[in-house]
Amino acid sequence: MAKKTTFIGLLGFGTVGSAVYRLINSNRDLLQRKTDHEIQIKSICEKNMSKAVGVDQKLFTTDYEAIAADPDISIVVELMGDCPEALEAMRMALSRGNSVVTANKALIARHAPELFELARKNNCEILFEASVGGGIPVLRALREGLASNRIRSLYGIINGTSNYILSKMTAEGADFQAVLKEAQALGYAEADPGSDIMGTDVVYKLAILTMLCHGRFVNVDEIFCRGIAHILPLDIKMAEKFGYVIKMLGITKMHDHSFEARVHPAMIPVNNPLAHVHGAFNAIQYHGDFSGEGMLYGLGAGGNPTASAVVSDIIELSRNIQSQNRINLGSTGFSHHTLEAARPRDILELHTCYYIRFSVLDRPNVLAGITAVLGRNNISIQHLYQQGQRQEDAVPVIVFTHKACERDIRSALKEIDAMDFITQTTKIIRIEDEP
Amino acid sequence: MAKKTTFIGLLGFGTVGSAVYRLINSNRDLLQRKTDHEIQIKSICEKNMSKAVGVDQKLFTTDYEAIAADPDISIVVELMGDCPEALEAMRMALSRGNSVVTANKALIARHAPELFELARKNNCEILFEASVGGGIPVLRALREGLASNRIRSLYGIINGTSNYILSKMTAEGADFQAVLKEAQALGYAEADPGSDIMGTDVVYKLAILTMLCHGRFVNVDEIFCRGIAHILPLDIKMAEKFGYVIKMLGITKMHDHSFEARVHPAMIPVNNPLAHVHGAFNAIQYHGDFSGEGMLYGLGAGGNPTASAVVSDIIELSRNIQSQNRINLGSTGFSHHTLEAARPRDILELHTCYYIRFSVLDRPNVLAGITAVLGRNNISIQHLYQQGQRQEDAVPVIVFTHKACERDIRSALKEIDAMDFITQTTKIIRIEDEP
Repeated sequence: MAKKTTFIGLLGFGTVGSAVYRLINSNRDLLQRKTDHEIQIKSICEKNMSKAVGVDQKLFTTDYEAIAADPDISIVVELMGDCPEALEAMRMALSRGNSVVTANKALIARHAPELFELARKNNCEILFEASVGGGIPVLRALREGLASNRIRSLYGIINGTSNYILSKMTAEGADFQAVLKEAQALGYAEADPGSDIMGTDVVYKLAILTMLCHGRFVNVDEIFCRGIAHILPLDIKMAEKFGYVIKMLGITKMHDHSFEARVHPAMIPVNNPLAHVHGAFNAIQYHGDFSGEGMLYGLGAGGNPTASAVVSDIIELSRNIQSQNRINLGSTGFSHHTLEAARPRDILELHTCYYIRFSVLDRPNVLAGITAVLGRNNISIQHLYQQGQRQEDAVPVIVFTHKACERDIRSALKEIDAMDFITQTTKIIRIEDEP
Repeated sequence: MAKKTTFIGLLGFGTVGSAVYRLINSNRDLLQRKTDHEIQIKSICEKNMSKAVGVDQKLFTTDYEAIAADPDISIVVELMGDCPEALEAMRMALSRGNSVVTANKALIARHAPELFELARKNNCEILFEASVGGGIPVLRALREGLASNRIRSLYGIINGTSNYILSKMTAEGADFQAVLKEAQALGYAEADPGSDIMGTDVVYKLAILTMLCHGRFVNVDEIFCRGIAHILPLDIKMAEKFGYVIKMLGITKMHDHSFEARVHPAMIPVNNPLAHVHGAFNAIQYHGDFSGEGMLYGLGAGGNPTASAVVSDIIELSRNIQSQNRINLGSTGFSHHTLEAARPRDILELHTCYYIRFSVLDRPNVLAGITAVLGRNNISIQHLYQQGQRQEDAVPVIVFTHKACERDIRSALKEIDAMDFITQTTKIIRIEDEP
C-alpha cells in the first residue's frame, strides 16, 4: 500500500512552531499509526531565519499566500500570534478549502463567527484546541466527552502567569510587584505583562470556553474583567484565615434564561480541588448536569504542551481529510445554524459573598459609618475585622459579607468612598463557594 | 426541514439504563443542537418490569434479538452487565451493522479484538467511554486530545469503592473490615465486594486504558494484580510519617521496548495531585511526552455520570451516521491494522522503592537476621522502624527500601518468611514517586 501524505503549511516558527516541528518528526511513527497517513511539514512561513537553525532551509518562505495557495497543502497551521497577517492568512486558507489549526485565542475569540462561516462555506474545518489550556484537552472534552451535558458552571485557572504570581504571593507572603519582577526575570511573565495580569488573556479564553459550553458567541468587550494588581499580601492572609485561597478565574455559569461570563480574582474554599493548582499549572473545573463535578488539570503553556494540542488537531483533520468525511458539526460541537451571539448577564446582577477591604483613618465612628451604609444597602456582614496595630496613617478594615447583590455593593461603596475617613478606593474580592 | 431521528435500542434498565433514559429526555433540545438529529429510544430490553415505573410500557421487551434486528434502530446501547447475553447482544448488533455503545468494562477488556474486528467488517463502531472513569471523558482524551503524545505513564484511581475505603481509613485511622462494612451499609460497596477490593475491576479498566495508551491488546490475566484487604491502619500511619498516601492504582508505563500494566495499592507522595482524590472520586494522571503531566478528575460511577458518558458516545455515533462518514479509525485512535496483542513486562522486572511490614516475635537478633538477608539480595534500607511498645505477641518491623528489584524483594522475603521469628507472611506496598 503506497503511503499517503497529509502536507502541512506552518505559519510561524517561534516557541510553539518549532515544538510542532519537533513533535511531528520525533513521533512520526506514532502519527502514522494514528492517522494511516504520513504527516509532513511542506513549508514554513517565518521572517526571522535565525530561528531556523538545524532545520532544512528549503522549507522556509516569507510568503504565507503561497502556502495558502499550494495545492499539496491541506492543513494550514497558524502560529503567528495576534497580528493582522494571522487573520488574513486564516481567511485565505479557509477560502481555498484548506483546514486551519490555530493556537490564536485572541483571533478566535474575536472572529469566530466569521471564521466558522468561512470554514462551513468551503467545507473545511478550523480547530483551536491549543488556544485554551495548552496541553489540557479541554475543548475536546467540552465538544465531545461532555457533549451530553448542560454545563451548569465552569471555573478556569487558565492563565499561568497570574496563577504563578498568586501562588508565589500565597506561599511566601510576598508583594505583587516583587513577585512580578521575579517572574519576569525567570521568563514566567512577559516584559509587558498587561494582558496576563489585567485579565485580557483570560477573557479571550473564557469567550472560547463559553462558546463551547453554551453554543453562544460572546463579544469579548462584554465579558466583565478585573485583574490581580490590587491584591495585597493582607488579602491573601485574610483569605487563608477564613478558609479560602485567592485564584484568578474565568467563570461561566448557565441559568434558565441567561448565562454569566466573567473574569476576576476570587476567593475559593481551600478544599476545592482548584485551590491546589499551583504555579504555571492550569485547570478547568466543570459541573455538568449529568457528569457532576470534574476537573481537567495540566500544563497551560509552553512550546511542548501547546504543540501537543496543535498536533492532536492535525491528527483529527488528517483523519477526516483522508476518509473524505463530511463536516457535519463545526468546531464547537453545536450545529452551526444554532450558534448565535448573546450577551452575558450584567455583573450588577451577580449575587455572591464579598470580601471588602476598606482603607480608613483610625478615628472613632468609622465602623459605625461603614456598617450603617452596608446595612442600608441590604448587605449583611459575616465577619468584620479591624487590624490591631494602630498606625499614624491609614488602617485596613476587612468585611466578609453574606450573599449580596453586586449592584448593592457598588452603590454602598460609592457612598462609603465619598466619606472623609476613606483614604483610598475600597477593594473587593468576590467569593466563589458554590458549584 | 423534516426532523431526522436516530433510534436507539437500550439493553438493560437498571441504574445506568434509566439514567440514560432520563438524560435523553431531559436534554432533548441540547442533543438536537449537538447532532441535528432527534435522539429517541425506540425499545428497551429489560426482564424486570418493576424497574419500568413511569416509563411508557410499550417500549419494553425481553427480546434483545428483536432490537438488534430492528431496521429502524441504528445504535444499540448495552447496559446489561457482565453476562453472556450482553456479549451475544453486542455480537448480534455489530454483525447487522448497528453501532454499539457499552459501559461493559469486563467484556471490552476480554473481547476487544473480536468486537473491534466485527465492527470494522460491518462498517460500524463500538464505543465505550463509560467503561472507565464514569463521567470523566478519559478515553476520548487519550484517543483524541492527547493523540499526538506517547503516553510515558498513566496512573489511575479508577475504582470508587477501594478509594472510598482507603480515604476513610486514612481520615479516621479506621480498620479495613470496619470501613468495608460501613461502605456496604451506605451502598458504596457491593454485598460481594470482591471485584472492587481484590482489584479485578481495576484490571479490566487498566486493560482498556493500556489499549488506548499504547495500541496494544493485553490479556487481563497477564496484568499483575493485588488488592487492598491486607492494608492496616499502621501502614497508612507509616506512609503519612514519611510523606506518602496509600492509593489503589492502575498503572501503565511505556519503555523503549516494553510496557508495564499493573494494579496494586501504592504509596504516592502527598504533594502528588492524586493524593487529594478522595472518596468516590476517580482520577487519571498521565505524562505525555509533549503534553507533560496532566490529570482528569471526576465522578467515576453512579447512574448520572455513567449516562453522561454513554450519551456522549451516542452523540458521536449519531453525528457519524447522519453524515454517513466512513469509519477510518476504530475506538482506540490507533489504526486497526496496527493493533496487536502484547504482554506487559513481568512484575519481577519492576524497579521501585518498597515499604515492607514484617511481623516478628520480639527477640534479640531479629533485625540482624532481616537486614542480613535484605543486604544479600541487593536491597538497601532507607528507613527501618520498630514499634516501641513491646507486646507479648508479634510486633511489626517496618522497612522503607531504596530502589530495588521486585525479583530480589521476592527472593529475600521468601527466605525471611521461613525464619522462625516471623509470625505471618510479610506484606509489601510498592512506592510510586517518579512520573
